Amino acid sequence: MPSLDMLLEEIVTANRILAHEGVVDSFGHVSARHPDNPKRFLLSRARAPERIEKDDIMEFTLEGDPVDARGRAPYLERFIHGGLYEARPDVHSVVHNHSPSVIPFGITERKLKPLLHMCANIGHEVPTWDSHDKFGDTALLVESVDMGRDLALAIGSGPSILMRGHGATVVLTPGEVDKVISRTGPYTLNRAWENWCRRAGRPYQAELA
Amino acid sequence: MPSLDMLLEEIVTANRILAHEGVVDSFGHVSARHPDNPKRFLLSRARAPERIEKDDIMEFTLEGDPVDARGRAPYLERFIHGGLYEARPDVHSVVHNHSPSVIPFGITERKLKPLLHMCANIGHEVPTWDSHDKFGDTALLVESVDMGRDLALAIGSGPSILMRGHGATVVLTPGEVDKVISRTGPYTLNRAWENWCRRAGRPYQAELA
Amino acid sequence: MPSLDMLLEEIVTANRILAHEGVVDSFGHVSARHPDNPKRFLLSRARAPERIEKDDIMEFTLEGDPVDARGRAPYLERFIHGGLYEARPDVHSVVHNHSPSVIPFGITERKLKPLLHMCANIGHEVPTWDSHDKFGDTALLVESVDMGRDLALAIGSGPSILMRGHGATVVLTPGEVDKVISRTGPYTLNRAWENWCRRAGRPYQAELA
Amino acid sequence: MPSLDMLLEEIVTANRILAHEGVVDSFGHVSARHPDNPKRFLLSRARAPERIEKDDIMEFTLEGDPVDARGRAPYLERFIHGGLYEARPDVHSVVHNHSPSVIPFGITERKLKPLLHMCANIGHEVPTWDSHDKFGDTALLVESVDMGRDLALAIGSGPSILMRGHGATVVLTPGEVDKVISRTGPYTLNRAWENWCRRAGRPYQAELA
Repeated sequence: MPSLDMLLEEIVTANRILAHEGVVDSFGHVSARHPDNPKRFLLSRARAPERIEKDDIMEFTLEGDPVDARGRAPYLERFIHGGLYEARPDVHSVVHNHSPSVIPFGITERKLKPLLHMCANIGHEVPTWDSHDKFGDTALLVESVDMGRDLALAIGSGPSILMRGHGATVVLTPGEVDKVISRTGPYTLNRAWENWCRRAGRPYQAELA
Repeated sequence: MPSLDMLLEEIVTANRILAHEGVVDSFGHVSARHPDNPKRFLLSRARAPERIEKDDIMEFTLEGDPVDARGRAPYLERFIHGGLYEARPDVHSVVHNHSPSVIPFGITERKLKPLLHMCANIGHEVPTWDSHDKFGDTALLVESVDMGRDLALAIGSGPSILMRGHGATVVLTPGEVDKVISRTGPYTLNRAWENWCRRAGRPYQAELA
Repeated sequence: MPSLDMLLEEIVTANRILAHEGVVDSFGHVSARHPDNPKRFLLSRARAPERIEKDDIMEFTLEGDPVDARGRAPYLERFIHGGLYEARPDVHSVVHNHSPSVIPFGITERKLKPLLHMCANIGHEVPTWDSHDKFGDTALLVESVDMGRDLALAIGSGPSILMRGHGATVVLTPGEVDKVISRTGPYTLNRAWENWCRRAGRPYQAELA
Repeated sequence: MPSLDMLLEEIVTANRILAHEGVVDSFGHVSARHPDNPKRFLLSRARAPERIEKDDIMEFTLEGDPVDARGRAPYLERFIHGGLYEARPDVHSVVHNHSPSVIPFGITERKLKPLLHMCANIGHEVPTWDSHDKFGDTALLVESVDMGRDLALAIGSGPSILMRGHGATVVLTPGEVDKVISRTGPYTLNRAWENWCRRAGRPYQAELA
């Protein structure tokens, strides 16, 4: 299977898994940088993650313009993804979610900390982005290139950020994948991925390769 | 499909969705104002929301009298719906529920507030209706026209109200639907509706139109 | 269907419903007084509630002796049921469970109170039975006629009792059923029963009559 | 069925049950001592517990070396199991998990205590093993024979231990099984086992014997 096709399947799988495991509900989204053009990213049309099919995945410029919309309506908040891919050449994938378990940490003084080895990848400190600081009263949505860039500035070089009254955004770099693999062997990562694919009724990618 | 038939299907779908998503259990109900006669509303016979079929939907006057019962027993609390449609010409749909997550806010001093952009539609402040204030010791049920009217008075022009030791009632106006659509595009609302319909095993209305 | 057969089906249904709704897990049990002999009660052999079939239901004397065991092993705690049927001629059904939500109230000073109209049937005050008071160090199980009788003494004429470090026991009298029906019409009770039967994959009894 | 085959089936079943009941997720594992050679134990290759098949079960020396790997990658933390079988001849089975409900007790001063008769088998006091005490900064994983032995030292002769920022490990001895059976009759244990097997879609072992 050509690598773009394979990546499109992986984006579908990632959306289905996050929905199946309760990280996203009808909202939230996952994107990947285009494998052949680092100035483009791939993200579904505006659809609930657990409903996404391969044909829903659209190509965008880093400013969030659809390359070939073919009547498909994009997510309003595609600027989260564009802003991060623009500011962070090391980032290959972006997840935005409203997971209920992180909401309280975006609005209280209490800091989010990893309590378990499995959570260490959130980093030493998770910053909180408050859209009000720069943009005043808004609908709390990241609905412009400016807002996307401001969010990217706030995450700095870290792996994740809280968004006050909204949710969280997480990025994944190849370096992190390598680090996890070097410490525990490739089977640790694969073990969970295989299980999550099967739970979500998706083919396990190793079988497609 | 004629508009009344379509609305009856939508009422069935709404009941099934609220049950499937855990907002209502064996109790709770959803009604809609009659599309051809604003002095009438449509509400299921006394049946658990996840069991409701199209033939269960009955027509009522604003005083809660069934127009053509055909042996179907109505919900005792149909007066919640009648009272709100009478007092609020702008209201097109009413949801009454005992959702466990709202119960504590009806009996404590702590105010219910939106912590997330997705919850902003509960409004700036959610009033609490205490049936004891006017009706003294009761079974805490809205079982008369008088009680329905008193509840409607307490909600004022707002979108939702807590009921002490009982639950909550939420109303939906066309203006609110317009406002949500104008801010985010129609696909945001549709995105969740499509997903909830499919989860509940109901046809997505756009396909019926 | 003869009334005993029908009651056996109802006992199976009640066990399945309580398991399906998460009130009991692999432990806990439901019994009914024998419809033709008030000195006898009907209770499953020692099996998880969600697995119980009609042939698992055994007949017991009020002392907890099986009338015709046919190799079926009884629950150790059948004395809970015998003790209550002996002390309370008004009781027609007994449920014993370890529902996690009630455990804390059996071991803290905080009193269990109804916060919702739907919970009013737990009564004004729920007593706590502490087996240690009379029996000292035990495995916390009601494993003798004496313990069953002591528990029955503690519940008095009420509908429910907490058991320290163990769970709860609830009784149901015909008077209570009548009171619920007279207040809300028979369809309120039936509404939930129909729904719970269908969720648990059991026939709705009205269809068997 | 020969006893080794039967035990392999039981290990598969135990993994599936713990996954199905939410004690383990994609991580965590269950082992058993080899029935014919007390210097060996049986543990799956690195795979999520709910995916494990009979052919995934590998044989290990007490130092954690695979006896006949045949290309199967082992769990990194097999040293937990080896360390415990080496130090405790009485132990026949070991469960390691990251169950979310135990994590807080590994990092706070509040002691884990049994609040219910069903939990008494955690023992009077549950020690906490802090890998930092002896090994300093690590990935919090038990990744060497030394760490496994240190964990075994900390559990002493008890049935369970908390691991700071990681999870818990539980051992099962024949003496404990006998004690449970002698107190409640064999059907109490079997009752839950039958139910858990059927929930997890596994044959009930009594049917295979």
